[in-house]
Amino acid sequence: MIDIVDCTLRDGGYYTNWDFNENLTLNYFQAMEKLPVSYIEIGYRSLVQDGYKGEYNYCPDYILKYARQHMPSKKIGIMLNEKEVKIDDLEKLLSSCKGTIDIVRMAVDPANIKRAGETAARIKEMGFEMGFNVMYVSKWMTEYPDFMTDVASLNGKVDSFSMVDSYGSIFPEEVETITRHLRSVLQCKIGFHGHNNTELAFANTLAAIKAGCELIDTTITGMGRGAGNMKTELLLSYFSSKEGVSLDFNSLSTTVADFERLKEEYGWGTNLPYMVSGFNSLPQKDVMDWVTRRFYSINSILQALHNMKDKKGDNLKLPIFNSDKSHFDTVLIIGGGPSGANCATAIKQFIKKQEDKSICIIHASSKNAGYYNDIDIPQFFCLVGNEGHRLEKVFADFDLNKISCVLPSYPRKMGTYIPQQLIDKSFELKEVTFSPLYQDSHTALALQTAIELSATTVYIAGYDGYDGLINENERLLTSENEYLLSQIVDKRPDIEVATITATKYQGVKNLSVYRLLID
Amino acid sequence: MIDIVDCTLRDGGYYTNWDFNENLTLNYFQAMEKLPVSYIEIGYRSLVQDGYKGEYNYCPDYILKYARQHMPSKKIGIMLNEKEVKIDDLEKLLSSCKGTIDIVRMAVDPANIKRAGETAARIKEMGFEMGFNVMYVSKWMTEYPDFMTDVASLNGKVDSFSMVDSYGSIFPEEVETITRHLRSVLQCKIGFHGHNNTELAFANTLAAIKAGCELIDTTITGMGRGAGNMKTELLLSYFSSKEGVSLDFNSLSTTVADFERLKEEYGWGTNLPYMVSGFNSLPQKDVMDWVTRRFYSINSILQALHNMKDKKGDNLKLPIFNSDKSHFDTVLIIGGGPSGANCATAIKQFIKKQEDKSICIIHASSKNAGYYNDIDIPQFFCLVGNEGHRLEKVFADFDLNKISCVLPSYPRKMGTYIPQQLIDKSFELKEVTFSPLYQDSHTALALQTAIELSATTVYIAGYDGYDGLINENERLLTSENEYLLSQIVDKRPDIEVATITATKYQGVKNLSVYRLLID
Repeated sequence: MIDIVDCTLRDGGYYTNWDFNENLTLNYFQAMEKLPVSYIEIGYRSLVQDGYKGEYNYCPDYILKYARQHMPSKKIGIMLNEKEVKIDDLEKLLSSCKGTIDIVRMAVDPANIKRAGETAARIKEMGFEMGFNVMYVSKWMTEYPDFMTDVASLNGKVDSFSMVDSYGSIFPEEVETITRHLRSVLQCKIGFHGHNNTELAFANTLAAIKAGCELIDTTITGMGRGAGNMKTELLLSYFSSKEGVSLDFNSLSTTVADFERLKEEYGWGTNLPYMVSGFNSLPQKDVMDWVTRRFYSINSILQALHNMKDKKGDNLKLPIFNSDKSHFDTVLIIGGGPSGANCATAIKQFIKKQEDKSICIIHASSKNAGYYNDIDIPQFFCLVGNEGHRLEKVFADFDLNKISCVLPSYPRKMGTYIPQQLIDKSFELKEVTFSPLYQDSHTALALQTAIELSATTVYIAGYDGYDGLINENERLLTSENEYLLSQIVDKRPDIEVATITATKYQGVKNLSVYRLLID
Repeated sequence: MIDIVDCTLRDGGYYTNWDFNENLTLNYFQAMEKLPVSYIEIGYRSLVQDGYKGEYNYCPDYILKYARQHMPSKKIGIMLNEKEVKIDDLEKLLSSCKGTIDIVRMAVDPANIKRAGETAARIKEMGFEMGFNVMYVSKWMTEYPDFMTDVASLNGKVDSFSMVDSYGSIFPEEVETITRHLRSVLQCKIGFHGHNNTELAFANTLAAIKAGCELIDTTITGMGRGAGNMKTELLLSYFSSKEGVSLDFNSLSTTVADFERLKEEYGWGTNLPYMVSGFNSLPQKDVMDWVTRRFYSINSILQALHNMKDKKGDNLKLPIFNSDKSHFDTVLIIGGGPSGANCATAIKQFIKKQEDKSICIIHASSKNAGYYNDIDIPQFFCLVGNEGHRLEKVFADFDLNKISCVLPSYPRKMGTYIPQQLIDKSFELKEVTFSPLYQDSHTALALQTAIELSATTVYIAGYDGYDGLINENERLLTSENEYLLSQIVDKRPDIEVATITATKYQGVKNLSVYRLLID
């Protein structure tokens, strides 16, 4: 049987920022101790200090001892990022691990294979088993022409060499070809670390084993960066059924159940954006960020991926918004909250009362726009990400003469989508002047549009905020909106900014549209 | 390029009972019309009347027309279950479909292949394109020895013949071998319908295509019975990236997003029980029932699967409960609701007051048992499914002399798990006498235990029921408990049954433990 390297905490940490609760880690370690897994890679060790990362990104000594205590019979490992490691730091990084951990692996960019070999040799001298996880296997043949011969220089310096399918884009036949090649030039163990973007992690793993790999990386429930990994429970139940390997299903199911609960929260696993990024060998980091924040539609992520694939940040440079310096005394920003619909009648009454003043509407979101198609003043639509698609149905009922679209400044990371009939009515902002953060958000776009229109009064409706228990995305959106509202209040004291429908947002004046109707 | 048969509604209906909301079906049909999918199989047609099944299990004519209206350029199909279809019924089943649908497929058991051929010939005569989906491909070689030659009799009777990996258990090499064989004996198109239990649906599909399959079944997000199917979006993005097939990602992502939302509710996709059933070629129906109701732990499902694999309903016959006819005047049943913990002090006070009477506790659930380990009367534990595992921690603090375990009668479908130290304290019920339904539930077990102990008074605590919005499982549990309580009240008027803590359950007398303390 081949050796399984379970790296659930190390690779799964990308979702939890390497914090895991102790009940879960205890169940996990106890399960690993009882299962036919050879190596347990519990986390990273690192000297990098930027930003918060949790316990299993640093694996302080007490964590190593805790793991050792519960897995006395297993080989325990940690991983280093080769590009972060200076040879002079090794003593500081690793000396206290001696006697507690068995194996050190390094994540290695194929471009740095020679430098990595020197570091590896030193780590081996310190008495650790030494393994390489070398990234981007699907690009070795095409983009790293020397790499496949350079690897021979690693002989004697590493105990194992694992291919990492970083993009989740490799196919079984390629795995076989590369494994056979490595087998012919390397004397160490060969391994495979599969990602599941295209649901080929298991087929690729079987191909790797067939071609002579002896080390397979897996994680419980596939928890791991992006679309996730080869699943430990899948490989183990395969070995149990097909090779008669004895399995403690009680231990396995206990830890699987823990991670399934975590998966409901964090939602790893593949989906259409990961599939597309996989088939096109695109980096996982951005996709993971877009997918997990759940702000973006699948379609806008796909758009961004196609831009990435075509190596362009954007596909459309637009005219700058309001270069003819139109002016409105009052702008009314309509957000996507329920009050934008519920109070539409009153808001439209208010607009009609302003006959002598110049007034316009800015739709921060398209959600409530349909309630305002019968009001005959200029209306501006903020197009962020996929908003253009959502708007297509809205525009069907609109007199196109009274609308314009405003987009973030060029280049737009998520790409540009504008419904065909609106392309000549679309403009981009030169810059967002009042806030350093969240410049691509709906709210920043709407407020900056008001600034560009030289408004002296900005009334805001449909910014209700959230009631009761809120989820992570609602919390983020609340912070974002409150921050932007406070920024415009601070930076532009010359503009009167007020919400005119019920709101939970703090830090901005709150009036009532019904009171305004009486004035 | 091969022909894709998208059968999302037909196969996905196993999760929704073939009801889908109209907004979802409209988006789906509009997407299909724009995507490079050749056939859209929208549902079953059936004359079977038992039990409720929704629109897409019967596909009445208006549904066929609705599909046709939105997919004018596509081949539209429905499926029949061969075992339900009599040749004389074909006219009734299919005549009104003429001109609206293009293809009729039949789900066929390989044992009935000859009979199915006759039905197929008749359907072809009616003017429909005729396809077979033949089940259990992973068992054809071993369990249907004549089948691989019998299929030749289908030549001229069917236009396509698809292998169905019913158990989700086949491997790519097997798919290739069988495809090549079919290719050599059949003149029609060969197809493949993959299930994703072992995450090999895509690898198997690629193998099928490589070996000459021309028809591939897929569903959006893999929605389909059990672990689900080959995903339409995965195969399409593969063809888009690797074969340059043009894709309308906007349409695709719109319908994918709809089904992703449905998936969050119904939770199809593979998991450890589906993997194990896949590797062991076990039927999906029970596993799906166990997994989707979410009453059972992963481990108890695995236990049941292993029993199924070993062709035994159970692995342990226990002594019959209370064969020495112990008797208690009063039994106190403690359920898992919060009041079982919150009112523990009062309940224990009440027990102490009963000094002269014989009284015992029956723990319907182990959840609150820990609150009663300091009370020195006999205590009975109901072990259903995985309860034994959950109890292991509870028992650590218990004086084992005062406890016994009661299990459902033999054989137990979910198998038997009893903690080692309790095996000689465990008994099974002979039968549940007071209710025809839910005999294996915690509540039935607890009430029958009370009957076996000849109790004249049954007090129930920790049966709180649910407040506010409840989910499907909570609704089922509510119905189950209310039914069982009403059954014992009806069938055993000689026993006084009453809840003594706050409860939402109807139909049983409700007292207060605090009032009982004053008596």
